[in-house]
Amino acid sequence: MQQVIDRWKGQLEQTRFSLDLAQELKKLPPIELAQFMQELDNSDLVRALSYFDSEEQGLLFSQFTISRQLDFYRSFSAKRFASLFNHMPSEDRTDLFQQLTKEEQQELLPFLEPLVRQDVLNLAAYPAESAGGIMSTDFATLNLHMSVESALMKLRKDADSKKMMYHVYVVDPYKNLVGYLSLKDLILSKPSETLDQIIKSPAPSALVTEDREEVARKIEKYDLVALPIVNAQGQLLGIVTYDEAIDVIREEHTEDMEKFMGIHSEQESLPYLETNVWQHFRARVVWVVSLAAVGIVSGMIIHRYEATLESLIILALYMPMLADTGGNAGSQSATVIVRALALGQIKPLHWMKVIFKEFRISFFIACCLGLLAYGKVLYLSWETEVPEMYSLWQIAGVISFALSLQVITATCIGASLPLMVRKFGGDPAVAASPAITTIVDITGLLIYFGCAVWLLGLQ
Amino acid sequence: MQQVIDRWKGQLEQTRFSLDLAQELKKLPPIELAQFMQELDNSDLVRALSYFDSEEQGLLFSQFTISRQLDFYRSFSAKRFASLFNHMPSEDRTDLFQQLTKEEQQELLPFLEPLVRQDVLNLAAYPAESAGGIMSTDFATLNLHMSVESALMKLRKDADSKKMMYHVYVVDPYKNLVGYLSLKDLILSKPSETLDQIIKSPAPSALVTEDREEVARKIEKYDLVALPIVNAQGQLLGIVTYDEAIDVIREEHTEDMEKFMGIHSEQESLPYLETNVWQHFRARVVWVVSLAAVGIVSGMIIHRYEATLESLIILALYMPMLADTGGNAGSQSATVIVRALALGQIKPLHWMKVIFKEFRISFFIACCLGLLAYGKVLYLSWETEVPEMYSLWQIAGVISFALSLQVITATCIGASLPLMVRKFGGDPAVAASPAITTIVDITGLLIYFGCAVWLLGLQ
Repeated sequence: MQQVIDRWKGQLEQTRFSLDLAQELKKLPPIELAQFMQELDNSDLVRALSYFDSEEQGLLFSQFTISRQLDFYRSFSAKRFASLFNHMPSEDRTDLFQQLTKEEQQELLPFLEPLVRQDVLNLAAYPAESAGGIMSTDFATLNLHMSVESALMKLRKDADSKKMMYHVYVVDPYKNLVGYLSLKDLILSKPSETLDQIIKSPAPSALVTEDREEVARKIEKYDLVALPIVNAQGQLLGIVTYDEAIDVIREEHTEDMEKFMGIHSEQESLPYLETNVWQHFRARVVWVVSLAAVGIVSGMIIHRYEATLESLIILALYMPMLADTGGNAGSQSATVIVRALALGQIKPLHWMKVIFKEFRISFFIACCLGLLAYGKVLYLSWETEVPEMYSLWQIAGVISFALSLQVITATCIGASLPLMVRKFGGDPAVAASPAITTIVDITGLLIYFGCAVWLLGLQ
Repeated sequence: MQQVIDRWKGQLEQTRFSLDLAQELKKLPPIELAQFMQELDNSDLVRALSYFDSEEQGLLFSQFTISRQLDFYRSFSAKRFASLFNHMPSEDRTDLFQQLTKEEQQELLPFLEPLVRQDVLNLAAYPAESAGGIMSTDFATLNLHMSVESALMKLRKDADSKKMMYHVYVVDPYKNLVGYLSLKDLILSKPSETLDQIIKSPAPSALVTEDREEVARKIEKYDLVALPIVNAQGQLLGIVTYDEAIDVIREEHTEDMEKFMGIHSEQESLPYLETNVWQHFRARVVWVVSLAAVGIVSGMIIHRYEATLESLIILALYMPMLADTGGNAGSQSATVIVRALALGQIKPLHWMKVIFKEFRISFFIACCLGLLAYGKVLYLSWETEVPEMYSLWQIAGVISFALSLQVITATCIGASLPLMVRKFGGDPAVAASPAITTIVDITGLLIYFGCAVWLLGLQ
């Protein structure tokens, strides 16, 4: 494959053209051709495009990065560009259109074919996060009472290299979606059979206003190659294909991870290096500052027990250990629960089972950590002076007991927060790790000082 | 759809049968039927299955949960079950086979059709994480020099409801993969054209030994409905379909999130509620305990500066704030970098750009947090006694200065770790949030005490 592309490169540099090479190029995967082509400068790119017919050009161009597409657009007149634009797949065309300035959009529209113009304006009007915002209008439709033979004839007549034909959709005269069938079903059936005998009905679908993550979930659930998108009346408006679903799932994951770490990106965020320092700062500072502000509660608790700490300084030395361990335990359990919720393995109504399970898991982890903490305190503070009233064994015991309680409560809190957030309709990933760390700090300090006061009789 | 299923339920309860209803049922999405059927008890389920032909039964059964499949299997003789098993899609059949005990496998094999038996044994031999472990053998092949007309005839003859036919694969007489074409390409071409004129070649493919995440990435890159899987000689062994790719991507996300939180799940981990307490414990305790053990370094640093703390107890009160803020900042930047690496937006060679960017972002965040910390210390410790040598203004200044330094270093460390891990060939998500928290604690304490000693002249 690389050889073919290299030969092509050679021809382009020498401004030669070979029909045979053009034939070979058409067999290669479009993404490979596109990745090579988009690195060319604009005049070489125009020559490269000439190896392909209009439809192929549109398909290849749609696989360039948006910035390369914009760059190319801005080097040419709207009129010359319109031809390429007309032949792009509908959802890529719309994405590009939305990146143009208002002036550029106004300039381009008159040169588009009427159907393309209408299609672009319709699609561009939908919110980006909805089904309408990611759907394609490149699909084929048939009538319910056609025979298989007529259906195949219609498909051949309507053919257009953009149209997805893994599935074809059956609609009534009012364009309402009745069902679908696969091309395989068509060719394996007798020519005289009518479509209502082989159709799959009803067809799983989504409303054009539904959230795109819901669309991706349906595609996953039904293992569909494409999900038809309908309006409230049931009319077929577009389709969302499996590759869009994969993109949505990937982006959903980025959002989850970022929410979990308290990063508020704006929608449609650019890649890391293309986002400037100020944008990064804005996305991240709010959360970190809010946590620091909430952390004032921890500060107030410590302040309340200042006297306790002064009377037994050794307690102050182990506060960080308690904060860390509690934070780790809580974040861990929160992660497990957030994922289990995301994969549909548990629901908020399972909360009792979940908390009970986490309680038991944390009990064993707490025992391990408590023992470790006991050993740590003895080892580190062996030579520290302690007030006569107490022995190091006692103090170590109290600290490790408090730590064990902290691990258990932190784990249970870490597991509960995502469940609560989901129950109230929010996204569990928002029960972010930094939030949990801050909350379990507060409970941890209360437990710590509570134990010190209760078990050692301090003030 | 629910109405149809309810009518069906009624018929099953009254052990009646209606051919019309059977016809309607065949049009519904298999997953909906399967979700209803798997809740039935075994005798009702047998009656329900009788509404479908053998191939449909295999397809529906393959959509049950594995535990329901096993349950059904264990209620019947291997001989009766074999018929159902023979008609399951190849990858689901293999997954089920791998869940049987060795005795059950030995018991079942003799009753399988020879081709099925060979297929199952072949597929079951591949490692679960490889392309071979997730591929299907239900695909159609054609010869390069066939005409379109003969190709369609062959497909009709070979037809089998399991075979994926969105794409068909063209092989040479030695079964080497030459290329592929879509069914649409076939029906839109003239019957007399030969396949070598319309074929797409070479076909993107993956080796049977490649990692499944690599397979998913290729499917994503080429927007393929299915990726052919070949052996080292180039012979076509199987295909991995887009829905498998979606599953792999989902599981990859779970693993990333869990690694990031220090949870070591075993491969093929069961859903949350089906995993018992002991298994959860084992996956999670190692990490938490290791961190606690590493935390001894923090403990030793605090111990070294005990005298410092005793002389200025107010310092001890703010150690938790430093630990928290540092941990939050470090985790945040690590998350951003891990995701940017995963999405291919940055590579380890970009480390200088990345660290410089993070440095600048953290500088501004550090200024905000430093000011906040200054205010906090003044507010909380207004009435605390301080040794005469110092004023609260000074101490607050030193603490907030140390915190600002801590935020900057923590952010840079949090960004560096994933880059380093990736540079040495590891998975960046392993530069897990708890590890970062522990490391920045250590550096944070050193900064804290360093500032206290240097700026306040303490010991």
